[in-house]
Amino acid sequence: MNQDLRKERAAASFNPELLTHVLDGSPENTRRRREIENLILKDPDFQHEDLNFLTRSQRYEVAVRKSATTVEKMRKFGIADPDEIMWFKKLHLVNFVEPVGLNYSMFIPTLLNQGTTAQQEKWLLSSQRLEIIGTYAQTELGHGTHLRGLETTATYDPETQEFILNSPTVTSIKWWPGGLGKTSNYAIVLAQLITQGKCYGLHAFIVPIRELGTHKPLPGITVGDIGPKFGYDEMDNGYLKMDNYRIPRENMLMKYAQVKPDGTYVKPVSNKLTYGTMVFIRSFLVGEAARCLSKACTIAIRYSAVRHQSEIKPGEPEPQILDYQTQQYKLFPLLATAYAFQFVGAYMKETYHRINKDIGQGDLSELPELHALTAGLKAFTSWTVNAAIEACRMACGGHGYSHCSGLPNIYVNFTPTCTFEGENTVMMLQTARFLMKSYDQVHSGKLVCGMVSYLNDLPSQRIQPQQVAVWPTVVDINSPDSLTEAYRLRAARLVEIAAKNLQAEVIHRKSKEVAWNLTSIDLVRASEAHCHYVVVKLFSEKIPQIQEKSVQAVLRNLCLLYSLYGICQKAGDFLQWGIMTESQVTQVNERIKELLTAIRPDAVALVDAFDFQDVTLGSVLGRYDGNVYENMFEWAKKSPLNKTEVHESYHKHLKSLQSKL
Amino acid sequence: MNQDLRKERAAASFNPELLTHVLDGSPENTRRRREIENLILKDPDFQHEDLNFLTRSQRYEVAVRKSATTVEKMRKFGIADPDEIMWFKKLHLVNFVEPVGLNYSMFIPTLLNQGTTAQQEKWLLSSQRLEIIGTYAQTELGHGTHLRGLETTATYDPETQEFILNSPTVTSIKWWPGGLGKTSNYAIVLAQLITQGKCYGLHAFIVPIRELGTHKPLPGITVGDIGPKFGYDEMDNGYLKMDNYRIPRENMLMKYAQVKPDGTYVKPVSNKLTYGTMVFIRSFLVGEAARCLSKACTIAIRYSAVRHQSEIKPGEPEPQILDYQTQQYKLFPLLATAYAFQFVGAYMKETYHRINKDIGQGDLSELPELHALTAGLKAFTSWTVNAAIEACRMACGGHGYSHCSGLPNIYVNFTPTCTFEGENTVMMLQTARFLMKSYDQVHSGKLVCGMVSYLNDLPSQRIQPQQVAVWPTVVDINSPDSLTEAYRLRAARLVEIAAKNLQAEVIHRKSKEVAWNLTSIDLVRASEAHCHYVVVKLFSEKIPQIQEKSVQAVLRNLCLLYSLYGICQKAGDFLQWGIMTESQVTQVNERIKELLTAIRPDAVALVDAFDFQDVTLGSVLGRYDGNVYENMFEWAKKSPLNKTEVHESYHKHLKSLQSKL
Repeated sequence: MNQDLRKERAAASFNPELLTHVLDGSPENTRRRREIENLILKDPDFQHEDLNFLTRSQRYEVAVRKSATTVEKMRKFGIADPDEIMWFKKLHLVNFVEPVGLNYSMFIPTLLNQGTTAQQEKWLLSSQRLEIIGTYAQTELGHGTHLRGLETTATYDPETQEFILNSPTVTSIKWWPGGLGKTSNYAIVLAQLITQGKCYGLHAFIVPIRELGTHKPLPGITVGDIGPKFGYDEMDNGYLKMDNYRIPRENMLMKYAQVKPDGTYVKPVSNKLTYGTMVFIRSFLVGEAARCLSKACTIAIRYSAVRHQSEIKPGEPEPQILDYQTQQYKLFPLLATAYAFQFVGAYMKETYHRINKDIGQGDLSELPELHALTAGLKAFTSWTVNAAIEACRMACGGHGYSHCSGLPNIYVNFTPTCTFEGENTVMMLQTARFLMKSYDQVHSGKLVCGMVSYLNDLPSQRIQPQQVAVWPTVVDINSPDSLTEAYRLRAARLVEIAAKNLQAEVIHRKSKEVAWNLTSIDLVRASEAHCHYVVVKLFSEKIPQIQEKSVQAVLRNLCLLYSLYGICQKAGDFLQWGIMTESQVTQVNERIKELLTAIRPDAVALVDAFDFQDVTLGSVLGRYDGNVYENMFEWAKKSPLNKTEVHESYHKHLKSLQSKL
Repeated sequence: MNQDLRKERAAASFNPELLTHVLDGSPENTRRRREIENLILKDPDFQHEDLNFLTRSQRYEVAVRKSATTVEKMRKFGIADPDEIMWFKKLHLVNFVEPVGLNYSMFIPTLLNQGTTAQQEKWLLSSQRLEIIGTYAQTELGHGTHLRGLETTATYDPETQEFILNSPTVTSIKWWPGGLGKTSNYAIVLAQLITQGKCYGLHAFIVPIRELGTHKPLPGITVGDIGPKFGYDEMDNGYLKMDNYRIPRENMLMKYAQVKPDGTYVKPVSNKLTYGTMVFIRSFLVGEAARCLSKACTIAIRYSAVRHQSEIKPGEPEPQILDYQTQQYKLFPLLATAYAFQFVGAYMKETYHRINKDIGQGDLSELPELHALTAGLKAFTSWTVNAAIEACRMACGGHGYSHCSGLPNIYVNFTPTCTFEGENTVMMLQTARFLMKSYDQVHSGKLVCGMVSYLNDLPSQRIQPQQVAVWPTVVDINSPDSLTEAYRLRAARLVEIAAKNLQAEVIHRKSKEVAWNLTSIDLVRASEAHCHYVVVKLFSEKIPQIQEKSVQAVLRNLCLLYSLYGICQKAGDFLQWGIMTESQVTQVNERIKELLTAIRPDAVALVDAFDFQDVTLGSVLGRYDGNVYENMFEWAKKSPLNKTEVHESYHKHLKSLQSKL
């Protein structure tokens, strides 16, 4: 083990293993997770050349091979529990980038949720056996967020009892679906259903796109890869254009809505339940954001413990860069954020399962809040983590820029999270819609419950800007509860301002929709403040639940740092409404410095507790065996540019140039 | 031309051509720049396949070919003026990524600055003719910022009159130099000079690394590519390890320091002048930051004018996404920042040349401030632009993530600017050192001049935190001058706080250096506030200089937006010290919304004025001919994954998998 890391570990104030158990949920979970991860780490079938040295086509090929191996091995090892599948896939896939992934995550679940029993009988087994490899084609070249704007049509022809699928415009070409470009031979296509001359909106259709056996695109189908992206090199995100392409009537998923053989449309009873998948994925993404940030922090903090540079005291050996206050200020608030989001992720997972059970029993009452919360937290956490990964990378100086750090890949594969499964600004505005509804409800005399219950207190606290001194400014900057209260007041105030500005715009403008647009900056701010409050609250509430005192102490410092750092970043909000005084804000800055010093000796142990065995696979800087510089040198030697053939073409150009000069 | 863009252009309140002249400095400059750019745009020798579709080795090869073509064509076209060289290289190189680039930007200039006449005679012509292709090897695997920490040694052997070069450790391996990996056959190597048993610190040596003719590494030299990075795919950043490698005594650059044949060391008279190159490069980088952000804004704003999505008013056609307040709030402050930095870049260039002339006449008085200002502004602008490019990319939704947007490449090639030529935090601390010196000077009764002259006013304004109401809170949020004053007060206050905290730490700690480290968060904040003030000031001062009233009006709005947006982001600072009142901050938020609405009709014309002909080469979303979606579809079809061979390997894996399921 690296000498610096050994020393760091020896100096830690707590045993990271105990914190790992907290993060995993139990010691048993930790044990089982490692068991599964070791299946991969030790299996020669999962070894492959460093993806960084491969071309995109080679990376795709490796990914296909890995996809195949995964399916096979999971069967062999008997991994079927959803958590265990996650552990397995997390370790050997970079961000779940898996060409056949959508077959399992979207095609099969949609078939199960929206297909009739007959339809499931027809396609389920073949797709589980990968004879059918399905994907899910919704987004179009010209349409993402706005589902009603999708242009693909499925026109019913009662004569042949077929649907005729068409991509009538360039903007209607299906664009982005994972695995569509090369891998899939089937797709669930979302299209505007037209029957008996009337459009009934979006419905889902099972569409064969490639011939089984030859894998050639079927007549009427144009399909391919959409080209290279920032990341997701291994994934063949694809396009799909359909020209008068006919599928049997039975290929429309008909569990809810139906089209009878004569073309009669039968409405679904309810479609609220389609909420479910969206809510699940978004709440899952919160945990993923935590995981990606934890990984980036692991690399940056380990490297900062190993890297020696410059001098603090003249004449002394170069200090670890982790000893610079500016480096601590860059990394420790992010480490605190990683822990905050880990706990939020666990809470979201738990809440989803609880509410899902209620829904199963017909109780939909908590769904709207859960929907609003997942939308907002997905946006809040992914925006934060997006910037934070880059901050980690840049904290590693030049070496962070090399692919050997592993950080560029973490970033490019994470950043789409800000856009997919609901673009973040749109998500924030969905949360805002819920907040405005809740505010109106309180205003009309009804109480609200859940995370927004602070709005119940608003009317009594409503004051004029001149009277800011009335606020109860007794924030104790050493108390997580008191800081939660400060965030609560901030959220309440920003929700109120947005509501009032919205009201004012409604009065001035003719349309409610125009007013909404002209208040949207305030609405997003309100949602952010709400989410920030939720994160601080959940983190604070976690602290007293930690049994082990040494672990509790260090997490308490992280919780304080997370909360105080946020106040420092948004000091204007806390000052403007008298939640804190000027001198308190000054104290916050000083307290943050103290916390950095307090956390310093435990920094490496805190990232060790994340227990990323896979950091060793993707990051030379995040490894903890041997000498980081020797490891980098060994890695670099494998660069494809170090093969001799490059010399020759270089020589050719150079010679031709020299002859002209 | 695209219909939406045509309409936008017709609706603009000013003629963008006039603004282009302002940015270029004169109509004549615009004409000549376009003339040079057209040489490239129309020359078939500069056409090549889209780099996004190539492997790294292919990209390197294209870059070598382009390097060669560039040298040849610049001779042919008679392009020799430094500005014209820039225009030429800017257009056809992605961020100047050019394998032989360092030969011209570092090797030859260092030879000219630090070499004797005899040395120049020996190597200059061959390097101009590219017989010698040189690079500049300073950074080591374990050492970047801290030059004294570099470990490479050059030990003088008087018997043979040679220097023996050694890389004694893994950390001493030269790492990162551009063009070192494959392209160069010579390097200027920075090494610790040892003679007569004593180390005299870093000196520069001319070191042949590859055999002329065969291009094979010379015995004792280990050299290669450091492997793939986030960006700079075309560049062979390299490593260099030397083992008892001997070079003649005459290969030490001896214009200043010398080693006599017997090994006697002769000290240089002064080394202040080596400042010059650093200051030049950093001031140049400020302009480059402006350029990169302008390019990203061009793409994002054009796309936002073309992209229609969702609905503001129900039932109406999908609006341009540029009509959403949230989209305007994302992009227009960045557009304002791009203009701010364009003017700062022009100012830096001008100032550099002015002060350089003074230096030529022996007047070094302004050098320390220029050095501090370039360090801080390099950091301030590159951090801002770094985040802003990503904000532009994410404002383009999913399509921003595709390489067809051009945005990922702009980002990955820009982001090293935060690290190279002085790591940004280190840069900010250099500026802080100057600010602290200036503060001390004022404190000791001497006036300071230049951009820090506001510190002269401090003693009279110094007040206790309790007395904030004493500040002159008469900020007029519609006056650029008044806003400059607000930023001036903020900078003064943050410099003072840093100085006082530093003083307090000095009293508590034994060492001044430890105190410096424990105040460094405050010091960086002070530098940022200083730089922010400088940018606001320069932008404000530019407005009255604009002759054309229509152009002045729109730039005035951008200047207000830039200043007010900054206040909104840093409201805590302005509130905490009573520079603004709570109700003024509320007004700022409302005024920003009005400015977004005011700028909206001119947004496309404002990016047109940047006049990026080259956006057409790298970005499908930033093109303005034809239909953006058709262009994207055409681009995607060329993806290498759309070649058939990928099918076969896919089939192989799939078949093997299916047989097992």
